Amino acid sequence: MKSNPNIVTIGGGTGTFVVLSGLKNYPVKLSAIVSMMDSGGSTGRLKDQLGVLPPGDLRQALVALSESDEIWRKLFTYRFESGDLKGHNFGNIFLSALEKITGSTQEAVEYATRVLQTRGDVIPVTLDNSSLCAVYEDGTSFDQESQIDEYFGKSKISKMFLKPNALINLDAKHAIERADYIIFGPGDLYTSLLPNLLVQGMPEILANLNTKKIFISNLMTRAGQTDDYKVSDFVNKIEEYMMGETLDYILVNNEPFDKEIVKTYKEVDNAVPVVDDIEGDFYHEAKVIRTNLLSNTVFKPSKSDTLKRSLLRHDSEKLAETLFKILSFK
Amino acid sequence: MKSNPNIVTIGGGTGTFVVLSGLKNYPVKLSAIVSMMDSGGSTGRLKDQLGVLPPGDLRQALVALSESDEIWRKLFTYRFESGDLKGHNFGNIFLSALEKITGSTQEAVEYATRVLQTRGDVIPVTLDNSSLCAVYEDGTSFDQESQIDEYFGKSKISKMFLKPNALINLDAKHAIERADYIIFGPGDLYTSLLPNLLVQGMPEILANLNTKKIFISNLMTRAGQTDDYKVSDFVNKIEEYMMGETLDYILVNNEPFDKEIVKTYKEVDNAVPVVDDIEGDFYHEAKVIRTNLLSNTVFKPSKSDTLKRSLLRHDSEKLAETLFKILSFK
Repeated sequence: MKSNPNIVTIGGGTGTFVVLSGLKNYPVKLSAIVSMMDSGGSTGRLKDQLGVLPPGDLRQALVALSESDEIWRKLFTYRFESGDLKGHNFGNIFLSALEKITGSTQEAVEYATRVLQTRGDVIPVTLDNSSLCAVYEDGTSFDQESQIDEYFGKSKISKMFLKPNALINLDAKHAIERADYIIFGPGDLYTSLLPNLLVQGMPEILANLNTKKIFISNLMTRAGQTDDYKVSDFVNKIEEYMMGETLDYILVNNEPFDKEIVKTYKEVDNAVPVVDDIEGDFYHEAKVIRTNLLSNTVFKPSKSDTLKRSLLRHDSEKLAETLFKILSFK
Repeated sequence: MKSNPNIVTIGGGTGTFVVLSGLKNYPVKLSAIVSMMDSGGSTGRLKDQLGVLPPGDLRQALVALSESDEIWRKLFTYRFESGDLKGHNFGNIFLSALEKITGSTQEAVEYATRVLQTRGDVIPVTLDNSSLCAVYEDGTSFDQESQIDEYFGKSKISKMFLKPNALINLDAKHAIERADYIIFGPGDLYTSLLPNLLVQGMPEILANLNTKKIFISNLMTRAGQTDDYKVSDFVNKIEEYMMGETLDYILVNNEPFDKEIVKTYKEVDNAVPVVDDIEGDFYHEAKVIRTNLLSNTVFKPSKSDTLKRSLLRHDSEKLAETLFKILSFK
């Protein structure tokens, strides 16, 4: 039998967390490449105030892969609720202190990897300090990820770029070159997924590989980013940012949502379910796999959380099971 | 040969740090009982803002006893220099997060003990939330340790008490009952050492033991606390707060100080060297041991440090060597 397949996830945030949490229980070798352009919340403040690279997406991937004592996972997800530390996440503080002491994001992550006993590697997509910029159809432009995150439903993004240019981290490059499968998403298309593809060197590397590429479609649209986006729109955008390189698998949840939750999303976030507009089982070069990927748990935002969190999420176990089937029966 | 002697240090702050750092390299069993009344700096803010017990003295003892990777000792002594976290020590933040998660100071310390691989136990003198209060000869009174710390040279302390009453931690009681030697100081008499003796149950336990008690005399006076105090004054106060119980050994440095540093102390802190006023080799029941205990390093306060630190310190190696001689030839 062939040795365990190399799986690389590309993304950031809660979506990547869910994928990694599930896959770590399967016989695969995992590398998580995460976006380094987050500029909101605790992460953004630490970045601005301490001059460290944004720790938030790294931290989520580290916790997802952790197999250490439960207390470490609790620490890394703990958010202070009052005083000077209010809103700051302990994991972010830990990574920031390590980066200040070692002078290196890479070393900080490696050390956290040992402490958290992660089953797999966590790799910053770039080690350059760069901001995510967006230009909208209404002419508005932003040069901070957090501004993009907050420009709800006002206009559509027409162009994304990084300022200054960021170069792909060599460790990320090597992980992709060794990969048997690359998993994109789920996650915010413009602020978690595509920023990885904007890094210099990334599209070229992806274009020159035979590696199978899997996209896990989002459950809900995001106002101001992916309004009215259907599954095909997500796929089109990803393939566009991969310079025309195509996906091999598209995973789509086909379990209906609770109507009350959908109503809340519409009212609070002006977000709607992502419609599966693909006819048949193929789109471009990709096979479409439709199955129940929905978590039965409804997630509530935590009290001191300054960022919006999804109420509806993919189920990590269902996702991992479906992904592992793809890996086993290629 | 008898098994390794049980040594208990009672104190807090830098003095205890120096004693523990040296003794951990000797064949002794160490328990550090530390004061829990600190209310200044990072520690005081975390205490007030998060409702945790003050982590600072615990943290210093933990680092002193740590035998883990150097990175952990660096983390635990790292102080953030800017932003929301400015002035906060990472070790304090770590202990505070652990206490918030576990709901227990004791559990937080035990977990930190494992992470830092300490050679010995660190024990809060009390688990009660209590403030150190002082009444001065000029009629002034304070109910916060930090206020006492800051009332430089204005008047002398006439009375100390805790509000509300704090009960001795059972682990501290048991450690003292097992002790072959108890080491007091060096350290600020009124804010690091005596607060331990104000805890309900402590004087009674000390009075009922045959354990040898060693006092390491301070190098310098402290304005507003121990102005003009000579060695005998320190000893008298400690014996008074032990309800008349006497010391067995008094360690006094006899190495002269650099004149420039003494001048700086006088000018900046209104502090002077503690004069050895004891004639002969005994004072009350105690044998006086005079030797070179002085560190050759001059310590400078760190940039972001909001607390005053000693320029002159005991040398941990010289102290440990002298202490170990006492343990070996009793």
